[in-house]
Amino acid sequence: MPKEGITPRATDYSQWYLDIVQQADMADYAEIVRGCIVFKATGYAVWEAMQRGLDERIKATGHSNVYFPLLIPKSLLMREAEHVEGFAPEVAEVTRAAGEELPEPYVIRPTSETIIGYFYSKWVRSWRDLPVLYNQWANVMRWEMRTRPFLRTAEFLWQEGHTVHATEAEAEAEALKVLHEVYADFVEQEMALPVVRGLKTPKETFAGALRSYALEAMMQDGRALQTATSHNLGQNFARAFDITYTDRNNTIQTAWTTSWGISTRLIGAMIMAHSDDEGLVVPPRLAPTQVVVVPIYRSDEERSMVLQAIDQLTADWKGTLRFKVDDRDHVQPGFKFNEWELKGIPVRVELGPRDVQQGTVAVARRDLPGKAGKAFVPQAGLREHVQGLLEDIHQALYDRALRFRDERTVTVTSYAELAEAVETGFARCYWAGDTADEVKIQQELKATTRVIPFDQPDTAGRCIVTGKETTQQVIFARAY
Amino acid sequence: MPKEGITPRATDYSQWYLDIVQQADMADYAEIVRGCIVFKATGYAVWEAMQRGLDERIKATGHSNVYFPLLIPKSLLMREAEHVEGFAPEVAEVTRAAGEELPEPYVIRPTSETIIGYFYSKWVRSWRDLPVLYNQWANVMRWEMRTRPFLRTAEFLWQEGHTVHATEAEAEAEALKVLHEVYADFVEQEMALPVVRGLKTPKETFAGALRSYALEAMMQDGRALQTATSHNLGQNFARAFDITYTDRNNTIQTAWTTSWGISTRLIGAMIMAHSDDEGLVVPPRLAPTQVVVVPIYRSDEERSMVLQAIDQLTADWKGTLRFKVDDRDHVQPGFKFNEWELKGIPVRVELGPRDVQQGTVAVARRDLPGKAGKAFVPQAGLREHVQGLLEDIHQALYDRALRFRDERTVTVTSYAELAEAVETGFARCYWAGDTADEVKIQQELKATTRVIPFDQPDTAGRCIVTGKETTQQVIFARAY
Repeated sequence: MPKEGITPRATDYSQWYLDIVQQADMADYAEIVRGCIVFKATGYAVWEAMQRGLDERIKATGHSNVYFPLLIPKSLLMREAEHVEGFAPEVAEVTRAAGEELPEPYVIRPTSETIIGYFYSKWVRSWRDLPVLYNQWANVMRWEMRTRPFLRTAEFLWQEGHTVHATEAEAEAEALKVLHEVYADFVEQEMALPVVRGLKTPKETFAGALRSYALEAMMQDGRALQTATSHNLGQNFARAFDITYTDRNNTIQTAWTTSWGISTRLIGAMIMAHSDDEGLVVPPRLAPTQVVVVPIYRSDEERSMVLQAIDQLTADWKGTLRFKVDDRDHVQPGFKFNEWELKGIPVRVELGPRDVQQGTVAVARRDLPGKAGKAFVPQAGLREHVQGLLEDIHQALYDRALRFRDERTVTVTSYAELAEAVETGFARCYWAGDTADEVKIQQELKATTRVIPFDQPDTAGRCIVTGKETTQQVIFARAY
Repeated sequence: MPKEGITPRATDYSQWYLDIVQQADMADYAEIVRGCIVFKATGYAVWEAMQRGLDERIKATGHSNVYFPLLIPKSLLMREAEHVEGFAPEVAEVTRAAGEELPEPYVIRPTSETIIGYFYSKWVRSWRDLPVLYNQWANVMRWEMRTRPFLRTAEFLWQEGHTVHATEAEAEAEALKVLHEVYADFVEQEMALPVVRGLKTPKETFAGALRSYALEAMMQDGRALQTATSHNLGQNFARAFDITYTDRNNTIQTAWTTSWGISTRLIGAMIMAHSDDEGLVVPPRLAPTQVVVVPIYRSDEERSMVLQAIDQLTADWKGTLRFKVDDRDHVQPGFKFNEWELKGIPVRVELGPRDVQQGTVAVARRDLPGKAGKAFVPQAGLREHVQGLLEDIHQALYDRALRFRDERTVTVTSYAELAEAVETGFARCYWAGDTADEVKIQQELKATTRVIPFDQPDTAGRCIVTGKETTQQVIFARAY
């Protein structure tokens, strides 16, 4: 049963998303700051959980965190030609400070390759200094025309990794390692969201990169959302910023660099992939609160009996389950159920006076709303039961998203089929076209190449636009 | 024995500080971004440890994290009269974006009372919405004229808490709770740094606050460093931003707000309070790496024997000690000792072939450089020994800093004594003067009132400038 204040997905998917953001209290529009949002407590707690999961993996793969300035001298941004083209049109500029015009404007970082390149040039001297493996958590700003909470905002939060290597092979290995071991592992294992991994076509490559890799996930309207990117920057930035090192033979060499990032867009991806017409659905491994316990009572006497039972029941949960007991007095249980459904808490436990006597509790799964997800179980062994349930929910969400994506991924062999397939999902096809062909398709079908998946066929086929024989397949989709 | 590259404290304390920052690889000057620094890996890791300790306490006292926009419409900053005066002269302004002049400039937040006040006005409706207990971790910018790594930089990192309450008493209790339970507890228990807690005089009160509380710590040159502030903002911001609520009697009331912050200045405080002429000293509870294990060997055979012994010895350390084994091959042990001393690792363990045979190790304390801090101990029970040592070091650092502060805190009864006392430390005196008197002392002695300490005498005395009888004492000091 759809909830008040939430437009059903089938009616208007786009409005449904905005309703979830608002009803789950994830964000507020910062109408007085163009294109920005306020991350409210529920939304920010999800970002903190994402940061923890990512930061762990970033450190486990050998990186350290650092922090570079927010402001970049405008002239520095202009040093790498393609990078300028990509970012100069959307930067915000600081031209005055302390009441005076600045001699040269600064831009607020849209990404930090340039300012970091400047410092790496100072820091890297010898092969002994390599690899440089740094990451920073930061806010960045891109003055986008059309914004949408979490998915596209003028200011957003992210991490950006920036590394320097002695050889092309090492830079390539780094870009792929981060894609697989940091990003894909996090998105699949903690967000329960299956991803397609692959290489970007030249048209979709990051401004200034040699090769860009990405993860693409399918949202519930069949559109793609790029959840992470990792770039082998080749020697483009190293040349522009003079990042060189003396090798073991005492010869000066130009270094190879990478950069990679994942942002608060992920919150949007989580909402759009898993949530339903009842509200937000937060995957259990990520959930800041995994279990909410709601006491049911009609009198003060019942209240103290039930709350005491809950105390005993949850006594050994600390450190093993992230839970809260909703003992608010001024609202009814029904109001509480509704609120925690809206906010996507994976498991709800209800306990009333009869449960106390019978040694049972009611347990409801958020991913299966209504009767389908509700069961009465014994109080004995409840913690283990809930832990098992959380793992089941993770797997169920992952499987559901994977099944959905597979059902809506079609291999197409004609332009007409391509046009039809991108209406509902991913179209996979042989591709030997160029950027001009991609631009044409984008104009005609509003679809872009998402990735050249790593998983490629063994046999050749004919390109869907040029007719040339090729072994390369790409995925087309409409994208966020 | 002072180290190369480090000016002794006695020679030039100010240069010593800059040398430590550089030699311990904490930060780099961002000479191309005025007044900014790069937080290098060693420096940022300390900040991450501080964030963890503070964030835990912020959450344990009932607050949630949120995130508000970086940019504030300039007109919004101007709404609270005293706040404007305090901050308008030092803001950086964004006047262009995406290639066009903006209709109204934005300022980069120097602090967020104004933008947060705007949203709190929207969010707070009824007494049921109170208290609002939010915090954000963010970067802020103040275009200061004179900067100094960590202590005063144009951009810095901090947390800022912003709360709303129904009554003055609740706002007052919040400001004090944060001062004691979050800030003082963290600074004393994790940074091993004793603080004086107290109220600021009107002259030193935050721009727009009713009352400001602060923690003041003494650095090794006897100067004060304000490590944290917590403000009862009264109804000033609530009135300027129209933060009102309907009370239980259905009457509209103006709310009371607080704000409180602690910043990357703390890194500077840590360096200046504990470090010595050998390099950085990081207090053990805070230290990202608490123990470094250095293998000693002359041959490949010895190397594998020693490293194997270290593996066995540290097998059960994970999760209980933060340690690293420095098994680099291309540098000598002496080089490693020097590096980890410079970087302030609290405990160093050395293990050579003879130790393997004898079942011993050498253990060196960073807080007692040279022979005084080195001992040979049995391998059996090493983990417990090191854990005990870390606690001893914490206590020794705290005690040393407290003794130093006590020795340099003088109760003075004449202006001549005051002038002398602030040359070397804190001067405590009776005080009934006003802002003009404070300004005069600042001009003459370069000293300011730090706090009116909570700990006050039972008897009255005569004010050091006005001669009036008063029961109030203040602390004067030169401050960072």
